[in-house]
Amino acid sequence: MNSKGETKERIIKTAAHLFQLQGYHATGLNQIIKESKAPRGSVYYHFPNGKEELAIEAVKYTGRFVEQQIKESMAQVLDPAEAIQHFVEVTSKQFNDPETVEGIPVGLLASETALISEPLRQTCVDVFKTWANVFATKLIQHGFDAEEAEALGMTINSMIEGGIMFSLAHKDKQPLLLIAQQIPLILNKKG
Amino acid sequence: MNSKGETKERIIKTAAHLFQLQGYHATGLNQIIKESKAPRGSVYYHFPNGKEELAIEAVKYTGRFVEQQIKESMAQVLDPAEAIQHFVEVTSKQFNDPETVEGIPVGLLASETALISEPLRQTCVDVFKTWANVFATKLIQHGFDAEEAEALGMTINSMIEGGIMFSLAHKDKQPLLLIAQQIPLILNKKG
Repeated sequence: MNSKGETKERIIKTAAHLFQLQGYHATGLNQIIKESKAPRGSVYYHFPNGKEELAIEAVKYTGRFVEQQIKESMAQVLDPAEAIQHFVEVTSKQFNDPETVEGIPVGLLASETALISEPLRQTCVDVFKTWANVFATKLIQHGFDAEEAEALGMTINSMIEGGIMFSLAHKDKQPLLLIAQQIPLILNKKG
Repeated sequence: MNSKGETKERIIKTAAHLFQLQGYHATGLNQIIKESKAPRGSVYYHFPNGKEELAIEAVKYTGRFVEQQIKESMAQVLDPAEAIQHFVEVTSKQFNDPETVEGIPVGLLASETALISEPLRQTCVDVFKTWANVFATKLIQHGFDAEEAEALGMTINSMIEGGIMFSLAHKDKQPLLLIAQQIPLILNKKG
């Protein structure tokens, strides 16, 4: 990647981190510029439409990051319930120190912006769908039918986002681990 | 209630509605003053410590409102799983028209403020606990042991908050209804 590409990537990573920790409204372009150590001009060059455009790229970045994490868990563990539990446990480790949270939650941004930015809302929905699809693919490989797998993928997604919000509020990974315990029950429907 | 009490209540209700729809950071005292039609002086009189104090009262107000709704569902339906499903269905109806959402979600405020306001974070945690206790009480009445009921109460809470976030992002009650379908599976552990 050339240095222009590196700068753009650094801006997006910083933005993703700040949006996740503070939310959309509490995060300004000035803080992103300062913390990314990017020249002010390069932020305006790469994101001429401002904060909304940068937030869309940040959500996509987080989406790819989390998708990769889910894929790794699905590949590492054969049993679908255990594989999903593994992913939730990996995610929960971030709450040992909430200040270091990264890669989650898109939920905060999605809630804040659902009613004010249609492009941002749609980006969040697309990212959620990508994650749900990875769960669904794993379930289909293990004999679930497509429709059921899709519904379960979305259910698991929203359980995890709820668990993340609870872990954030409690400053404790316990709520996410409680959610992880329920995953086998949810999948027991089949069989 | 005297008229001073009525004004205070109107300010809190307006604040609760705006915080839920827009989040903490996007909602300013000026908008609360304008939409509640309260005299500016009365907002400063009732909430001398400003927005954070008002947000704490708004979260408590929402907490009581939702607690009452949960209690009504638990009283109306005998079977615990069906009673919880009934509550989720009542909640989901708000997403027929997301602009009219009220009573939820505390999750947005909790996520936004967990790392910046300890009193507000604690208030959200207390409110979540109140709701979980209502679920747990119902479960205990139907033979669950206390520890299991407590864990399930928190799990159900975070599933519902996740479903609310997803319904908000999708502008559709379907994610919440999917969550409702999983409730019997979660409770089947027992028996």
